[in-house]
Amino acid sequence: MIFRQLLETDSSTYTYLLACERTGQCVLIDPVIDTVERDLQVLQDLGLQLTYTLETHIHADHLTGARKLRAYTNSKIVVPAMDQLSCADLGVEEGKPFKVGDIELHPLYTPGHTSTHHAYMLDNGMQKILFTGDALLIEACGRTDFQSGDASTLYQSIHSKFFNLPDETLVYPAHDYEGRQITTIGQEKNRNPRLGNGKTLEEFVEIMTTMNLPYPRKIDFAVPGNQACGQCPDNVPEQYRGPCEITALPKALQRVAKVGDQG
Amino acid sequence: MIFRQLLETDSSTYTYLLACERTGQCVLIDPVIDTVERDLQVLQDLGLQLTYTLETHIHADHLTGARKLRAYTNSKIVVPAMDQLSCADLGVEEGKPFKVGDIELHPLYTPGHTSTHHAYMLDNGMQKILFTGDALLIEACGRTDFQSGDASTLYQSIHSKFFNLPDETLVYPAHDYEGRQITTIGQEKNRNPRLGNGKTLEEFVEIMTTMNLPYPRKIDFAVPGNQACGQCPDNVPEQYRGPCEITALPKALQRVAKVGDQG
Repeated sequence: MIFRQLLETDSSTYTYLLACERTGQCVLIDPVIDTVERDLQVLQDLGLQLTYTLETHIHADHLTGARKLRAYTNSKIVVPAMDQLSCADLGVEEGKPFKVGDIELHPLYTPGHTSTHHAYMLDNGMQKILFTGDALLIEACGRTDFQSGDASTLYQSIHSKFFNLPDETLVYPAHDYEGRQITTIGQEKNRNPRLGNGKTLEEFVEIMTTMNLPYPRKIDFAVPGNQACGQCPDNVPEQYRGPCEITALPKALQRVAKVGDQG
Repeated sequence: MIFRQLLETDSSTYTYLLACERTGQCVLIDPVIDTVERDLQVLQDLGLQLTYTLETHIHADHLTGARKLRAYTNSKIVVPAMDQLSCADLGVEEGKPFKVGDIELHPLYTPGHTSTHHAYMLDNGMQKILFTGDALLIEACGRTDFQSGDASTLYQSIHSKFFNLPDETLVYPAHDYEGRQITTIGQEKNRNPRLGNGKTLEEFVEIMTTMNLPYPRKIDFAVPGNQACGQCPDNVPEQYRGPCEITALPKALQRVAKVGDQG
């Protein structure tokens, strides 16, 4: 398996590339519209064609790169089925493994940050690997005060779907704002200041409802744009419109885009 | 592969269990004399017989459990060959993979914390996994002011053997004093306050030589004891002598020790 953890710096979002070396199939989990060209470069450097993009949820802090990547490469847009997005090509749901060549991703329904949030788990033969989206972050978790967020629901999701996994389970979050890349279930059960060390539901809800976080900078265009799989709505402010354009790719990237060019 | 990260709390040492499921062979990296019974319980719960113990270096902060585990289970004591310990059963060296069933551990000669320190690397098909011993810790590194330590040598080891590995390489350290379990090469290159963000050799040596760390609490008995593979020397103070004794195992643990009992 080929694996890469790729950072989009403006929203501190991690995009994950997983590729099956036997079949050449690959997936980008949570690609960002701002870094589509970077992602294409990585794919091309590795000699890969993009098969799927896969979302953990409808993001409020960035626009997904799903639609733009589909335009360039004919990749299929995969989202949680319960999002019922007509722009998507495939829906996933808990209990039905999503296969990318020989890679099996197990969707875990983990509402709380949003009401349809999913995490994805795989087993690499040594450890379980959890892509936790915004449900669980390193010493943090996704906010629950916007969209369909609910602190009590998030607590239940984390406890019932994550905290019963082995301590050695690797946690790859969708964001980190301090340059950290990885944690484990054991480490978060021990150290997470909102959830660790046996924090109760009441303590967690109290913490989450008294955070006084600023209004999300991109939410007004990101949510409607992501409900359209990353189509830029008219209200994207000028300074964020650059990545909206689907320009001709530089020559160096035309090999990775050849499926799209032919389509 | 079966994998466990086990903590010894007095010295905050991580012991790593790696087992090949096909052959049943397994290894404990850096076991501690204080937690031999705990380790045997884990092995028995998993239905494993201990094949090897493997040291990263001659520790100054705890006594190895190698000799006590060998007494109970007939496991073989494996150490860096250049340590030339007559008490050991096998020596490893860089360039010669050490096989535990289907698991291949690649020794990396990484002096600096001690002059014969080795790290061990494996590839699980998704990421490279590095057991860094005391050479590289999470946002830290092993001290270089005792035994055969040398800051300049440690800097070279980390740069030439670790920092040229992929950013996604998982780093499992021999210690963490704050309950963290894991980091990556990318994260340490970015965030390690002594080595990250392009710190020069001169900056690193300056940091390491002005740390004013306290005298290691167990060094006077740990180093000679570990040069004898974990035999307690006469100068072990009373409060640390408990684990020195090789008592009859409780009935519940006699299955895991059966090879030793027969030997």
